[in-house]
Amino acid sequence: MTSSTYDDDRKHVFHSWSAQAALTPLVVNRAEGSCFWDESGRRYLDFSSQLVNANIGHQHPKVIEAIIEQAGKLTTIAPFHANEARSEAARLIASHAPGDLDKVFFTNGGAEATENAVRMARLVTDRHKILTTYRSYHGATGGSIVLTGEPRRWASEPGIPGVVHFHGPYPYRSPFYADSVEQEGERALAHLAEVIALEGPQTVAAVLLETVVGTNGILVPPDGYLAGVRELCDRHGILLILDEVMSGFGRCGEWFAADHWNVVPDLICFAKGVNSGYVPLGGVIMGPKVADAFATRPYPGGLTYSGHPLACAAAVGSIRAFEEEGIVEHARMLGTDVIGPELAKLAVNHPSVGEVRGLGVFWAIELVRDRETREPLVPFNAAGPDAAPMAAFIGACKERGLWPFTHFNRTHVVPPCTITVDELREGLAILDDALTVADSYYTG
Amino acid sequence: MTSSTYDDDRKHVFHSWSAQAALTPLVVNRAEGSCFWDESGRRYLDFSSQLVNANIGHQHPKVIEAIIEQAGKLTTIAPFHANEARSEAARLIASHAPGDLDKVFFTNGGAEATENAVRMARLVTDRHKILTTYRSYHGATGGSIVLTGEPRRWASEPGIPGVVHFHGPYPYRSPFYADSVEQEGERALAHLAEVIALEGPQTVAAVLLETVVGTNGILVPPDGYLAGVRELCDRHGILLILDEVMSGFGRCGEWFAADHWNVVPDLICFAKGVNSGYVPLGGVIMGPKVADAFATRPYPGGLTYSGHPLACAAAVGSIRAFEEEGIVEHARMLGTDVIGPELAKLAVNHPSVGEVRGLGVFWAIELVRDRETREPLVPFNAAGPDAAPMAAFIGACKERGLWPFTHFNRTHVVPPCTITVDELREGLAILDDALTVADSYYTG
Ligand SMILES: Cc1ncc(COP(=O)(O)O)c(C=O)c1O
Ligand SMILES: Cc1ncc(COP(=O)(O)O)c(C=O)c1O
Repeated sequence: MTSSTYDDDRKHVFHSWSAQAALTPLVVNRAEGSCFWDESGRRYLDFSSQLVNANIGHQHPKVIEAIIEQAGKLTTIAPFHANEARSEAARLIASHAPGDLDKVFFTNGGAEATENAVRMARLVTDRHKILTTYRSYHGATGGSIVLTGEPRRWASEPGIPGVVHFHGPYPYRSPFYADSVEQEGERALAHLAEVIALEGPQTVAAVLLETVVGTNGILVPPDGYLAGVRELCDRHGILLILDEVMSGFGRCGEWFAADHWNVVPDLICFAKGVNSGYVPLGGVIMGPKVADAFATRPYPGGLTYSGHPLACAAAVGSIRAFEEEGIVEHARMLGTDVIGPELAKLAVNHPSVGEVRGLGVFWAIELVRDRETREPLVPFNAAGPDAAPMAAFIGACKERGLWPFTHFNRTHVVPPCTITVDELREGLAILDDALTVADSYYTG
Repeated sequence: MTSSTYDDDRKHVFHSWSAQAALTPLVVNRAEGSCFWDESGRRYLDFSSQLVNANIGHQHPKVIEAIIEQAGKLTTIAPFHANEARSEAARLIASHAPGDLDKVFFTNGGAEATENAVRMARLVTDRHKILTTYRSYHGATGGSIVLTGEPRRWASEPGIPGVVHFHGPYPYRSPFYADSVEQEGERALAHLAEVIALEGPQTVAAVLLETVVGTNGILVPPDGYLAGVRELCDRHGILLILDEVMSGFGRCGEWFAADHWNVVPDLICFAKGVNSGYVPLGGVIMGPKVADAFATRPYPGGLTYSGHPLACAAAVGSIRAFEEEGIVEHARMLGTDVIGPELAKLAVNHPSVGEVRGLGVFWAIELVRDRETREPLVPFNAAGPDAAPMAAFIGACKERGLWPFTHFNRTHVVPPCTITVDELREGLAILDDALTVADSYYTG
């Protein structure tokens, strides 16, 4: 028997990134903390934070309270007014932003954040090109989808002109034939310097990076890489945009992942963790270098719900809870004391685990058929039968009550920043178990 | 004395479409029905519905209740699950959509709606070009900003390729030298047919129109125009996308403006009025022609908050209130019985009123210096001193407690669909008064 929710979904809801005919979505009407439940009452431990957005966990009482209070006062008002929730959210976000970044342009989500950061960079520099990495995701609107450096952009090409992709560091599968993390960082910097030289530094408005690459692999930059990029940008008058839509707000055990390396970009894009997506919100944080360029010249961008009071109230509630409950510190501790050591054990015990990497509550397990050749468990961008080993692994997790986040040949460990150590160990034990399924495809 | 809300706004909020230094925003923390109040307690009658989004008025108790109830249950869940609020919102939207349009892809706002409609049209037809009108607004992301046919796109050009602008009907300033509304419609159709022929019909994926052009003038299409466009599209296998982000959900005295002419497009873009922006929401409505093209082939688009439960719950609350309270019918009555006749009187009494036009609660007053030459009160896209006459008119409205919506040389009458006849008459009396200021610039 199916419910009307399920039936109406199949009849009336068109789902993203999917072939519609084959979908059999879970009906989810209840979630709390690090868990959610389907209609039959089955519990799932959420090792995905949904789309890596529920940083504060599900239905955190302080954020719910902030939403309910603001709903009773004022849900929405046009962007050209000032509003207490909007001002306070901007103030709080600025207070946690690195360096002199102190002004916020609000959007509804991550795509609009990268769109606007790029528009700002182009206008501030009066240059056109944007350099972004392969193996990145920056959103799915006309600009953000071609900023994206992975297969999801293919169907939307050609897009806006002037986007150039280069290689970021990826020590495990080095595009630079590096044999150490340090060398990978150095060669990645040399590569970027060469691309800038060949593109013409005076044509480049910005370098746009995910501080720690998220969906495309939890690629943690080698120490020194971000500082080197910052230095390259400074040398050539290029702006540095860090996309922290996924890596920000506690995910990496810092307010912003950039803090881990003490690097100050010119623009930060955020969304997701700012209010855990309880109400759609994103934005761009900038310092005077950008803001002052629009002191007397109008900024030519906007959206109806910029600085939405209900969304901002949720951000205020969430950031205050982060502060009061030490959520950033908790996430950092989970990474160093629990996830790191435990994943290292999985790597020892499971031949299919090629590498584990990450920080905070932002980790990847890279699954391979052969540790020597590092052949991925499934091919790049695999679908259908080619992806069967990953489908089997995912099935094994779900059967055991764990909702994983997977991409290509990887499973990510990205639970809420608020997950307890016990819940985390429960989930890691399930992973341990499910990885035997991945091992069964091992051919090395 | 200024409040911390004001100060923090100036320090930390970057505002859309503006030069930041000169801003002196009103602090607004309270609104109800058709009014909002600033910090000092000053009341404004909202003849703008903010950005023409608050169709149900401010803080409608049924929508607030729906938000609060859903907040207590489940604020957010990933798009790949099914959820009761999402299913019910999709079902209700589909139930009011014309023809066979029965599936909804949800976004956060209007820009993402037009972005995705265009992506769908290109993939369904396997063609590239999108024909849109001059004097249109479709959003400010990489694609939507160049779909836009007005000056706000200039700073973002060049954008995605394949967008071609043509002229829609505008009887008062006919690009076709027409001397009747009927002739304007015929010539606009002939123009579109010619543009299609010259662009190559087999290269055209879609014609994208605002059903009734909003911000750029409340341009009501002559009877027969939309049916003619539909017929042209059918003849050439081109999809018809109607952008009803502003014109939908009661604004034109219909659920969708297209209903006024009984035209069924292939795709409808919506946002704003669907839940009056109480929680950011937009989307695309499609029929089997589009949805079935993605039955077995994945749709290559998405966003983290597609089908956001809290936003969908607000839509459910709002649509039910629309049904229960006859809000669409009320809006239609206001247009025919009050706004139409009253604006006709203003046109008689004020020389600066060149034309009044509209339907439902969607009206424009076009202000001119000279009725004979139709010279606009301020030049096209005027700013600074050139725009002084409009600034004076706006000041006169605000002083008298009316918040107008203005664009170029026009003021729009776009209050909530729920405004009472008394409030409407109060606002129209203020307009009558303020128009004497516009008259003072009359030179005809
Ligand atoms: C790094 C990054 N940037 C941008 C986005 C786009 O955000 P949204 O889906 O809210 O448009 C995402 C979404 O996953 C992301 O991970
Ligand atoms: C007709 C139309 N389309 C699209 C949009 C863009 O919507 P949003 O501001 O929510 O992105 C607007 C906004 O005013 C609009 O009026």
